[in-house]
Amino acid sequence: MAAPAAEEERPRAGRGAPGVEQRAGRGGGDLSRAEPRRALPGVPRPERRASSGDRCGLSPVRAAMTETTRYSGGGFVHIKNPHLEAMDEDVLYHLDLGTKTHDLPAMFGDVKFVCVGGSPNRMRAFAQFVHKELGLEGDGEDLADICAGTDRYAMYRVGPVLSISHGMGIPSVSIMLHELIKLLHHAKCRDVTIIRIGTSGGLGVQAGSVVITDRAVDACFQPRFEQVVLGDVVVRGTDLDGGLVEELLACSKDIPDFPTLVGHTMCTYDFYEGQGRLDGALCSFSNERKLEYLQRAHDAGVRNIEMESTAFAALCGLCGLRAAVVCVTLLDRLQGDQIRASHAVLQEYQQRPQRLVAAYIRSRLGLGAAAGNTRPDRH
Amino acid sequence: MAAPAAEEERPRAGRGAPGVEQRAGRGGGDLSRAEPRRALPGVPRPERRASSGDRCGLSPVRAAMTETTRYSGGGFVHIKNPHLEAMDEDVLYHLDLGTKTHDLPAMFGDVKFVCVGGSPNRMRAFAQFVHKELGLEGDGEDLADICAGTDRYAMYRVGPVLSISHGMGIPSVSIMLHELIKLLHHAKCRDVTIIRIGTSGGLGVQAGSVVITDRAVDACFQPRFEQVVLGDVVVRGTDLDGGLVEELLACSKDIPDFPTLVGHTMCTYDFYEGQGRLDGALCSFSNERKLEYLQRAHDAGVRNIEMESTAFAALCGLCGLRAAVVCVTLLDRLQGDQIRASHAVLQEYQQRPQRLVAAYIRSRLGLGAAAGNTRPDRH
Repeated sequence: MAAPAAEEERPRAGRGAPGVEQRAGRGGGDLSRAEPRRALPGVPRPERRASSGDRCGLSPVRAAMTETTRYSGGGFVHIKNPHLEAMDEDVLYHLDLGTKTHDLPAMFGDVKFVCVGGSPNRMRAFAQFVHKELGLEGDGEDLADICAGTDRYAMYRVGPVLSISHGMGIPSVSIMLHELIKLLHHAKCRDVTIIRIGTSGGLGVQAGSVVITDRAVDACFQPRFEQVVLGDVVVRGTDLDGGLVEELLACSKDIPDFPTLVGHTMCTYDFYEGQGRLDGALCSFSNERKLEYLQRAHDAGVRNIEMESTAFAALCGLCGLRAAVVCVTLLDRLQGDQIRASHAVLQEYQQRPQRLVAAYIRSRLGLGAAAGNTRPDRH
Repeated sequence: MAAPAAEEERPRAGRGAPGVEQRAGRGGGDLSRAEPRRALPGVPRPERRASSGDRCGLSPVRAAMTETTRYSGGGFVHIKNPHLEAMDEDVLYHLDLGTKTHDLPAMFGDVKFVCVGGSPNRMRAFAQFVHKELGLEGDGEDLADICAGTDRYAMYRVGPVLSISHGMGIPSVSIMLHELIKLLHHAKCRDVTIIRIGTSGGLGVQAGSVVITDRAVDACFQPRFEQVVLGDVVVRGTDLDGGLVEELLACSKDIPDFPTLVGHTMCTYDFYEGQGRLDGALCSFSNERKLEYLQRAHDAGVRNIEMESTAFAALCGLCGLRAAVVCVTLLDRLQGDQIRASHAVLQEYQQRPQRLVAAYIRSRLGLGAAAGNTRPDRH
């Protein structure tokens, strides 16, 4: 295992590169020694957080500090963890799967597409919809939840497609992704594309629009995912695959029923105060300051706001998964905070990313243009 | 609505006090004006984040920056949001409830205990267990999910007890709490006690031990909950109710089957790297550095690690809910990372916090000591 200098700016590649920049002392990213590392001679130090809590007032942290590597090693999913090799058994606790209890290569070895989203019901509906769209036998009504032994996540498989729920927020999607990535690695999957299909608040776009994310940014509009590891702040880039964005956009041309656009997606840790909502149990700012913040986000290119994209982009990118985020907007946050559309309208909105992604999968599988007018079942 | 100086250290009270300290510029906590506030003459500035990414190397942020107010205003649940009064309708979107569609005072007005936990199945099992423990009519098998219209959360009501799932991680528990707190406010509930019953990793304690949290701390062992609001970092205190800790500990004396202790609980945003695990898809540190970190946590008084307690303590404290956290430890993290106990053993562990809290509720309701040997159903 190589021990790259975590502060280097040049692209890193290969299995040994943790692919993190560490802004600080204690040497995460360096597996070769346990000692604190405060200053390495000859190695440029990374930018530090300025001494102010106003995060957006910082000089921008370098974008895409991490060059993510994709498709090296024959398209396998990378594990950036040297300790795993030494483990006799790997229990994927929150998925209720494991390397000794399940034959993961037989169960998942030929998976090519993984679709993830917050709601278990919606991911079941998506699996049933894909079942129809791929013209598979049977009606898809009896699809079994592969994770039935736990209620943390739900997982369905349809042909080469895996459909998995991830709950709400970065911690929840992160647990699922760690275990999913290990699953795909243990199963020896190759050339996997992963797409998050979600709901979001829109910013200056018509409710019901579908946004394909070209850049996942944090609450200060920066393309970074910050994490505390052993007490240090580690910063990761949130690159997504530009080619996949274009392919998805091309597929959207065949679906005239709703607008699809490409834009930045802001990812927050909180739905209420964290997204500038005035309608939570706590709110310590005025409508004017809220609108000023949302307008700044819009000016920075943000077109929708959700709660998983930066972690999703960072983890998938580091592990060699071609990744995209496709979310429908349930409202325009410049117009209000509360989601008030009728249940039926929201249901139809939530099917839009599913229809686009199913069309993309059909196209990749050479099944021609999507039926387009068929829609997934309600959920 | 008063506009307290956010940097003041003295205790704040009353409905108008947002109860946050803001370490930075832009005036969250100050509703009276929309202008940026960089330096107020005569007002001491708060401690700032030091210019290093090594969060744990900081001089400790002042503990308990926020004096939370409890039981003022006749024991009602506080809403710290002046905008809510002006709203014609409040749709609690993720709970599938609302002020126009539901008679919240009739449905929830006499709720006195709210118990929350990650898993929907476990919170259903807890409701059924409480049904038995309170000697209510029927077998409790047909309890209806009050949030059945959504799969984001599940909610059950049994007498004066509400049992709700919150998913995994701070963002997920935070969405639920914002909407729950508004629900309790709209329903005019009084003198509500809220208890999180969860699972956790232990630190230097026997697997299966139940930890009652005396202090919720972050990944740097500080009693604070940081949040980005409109681009500013807002820091909140994580005080829990000391009297409630003592009452729960007293109840544990009647349950000899498992060890119960009082200790600090560390709350992280990530289950793998964020808790120093070596078995995630990514790991950039050595076993030695992991153990050094966990040992430092133990030396700081941390006895278990989970993913919700700081946000739970901060939000409940600010809104006048008497709050506690009671978690079982599924393993000792000083001994390993993977949860390997059998399904049956883990099930029994997970019932322990439920049994302790049910005993507490029985005691508060004057029903005498808990049966003790009865146990909730498997889930």
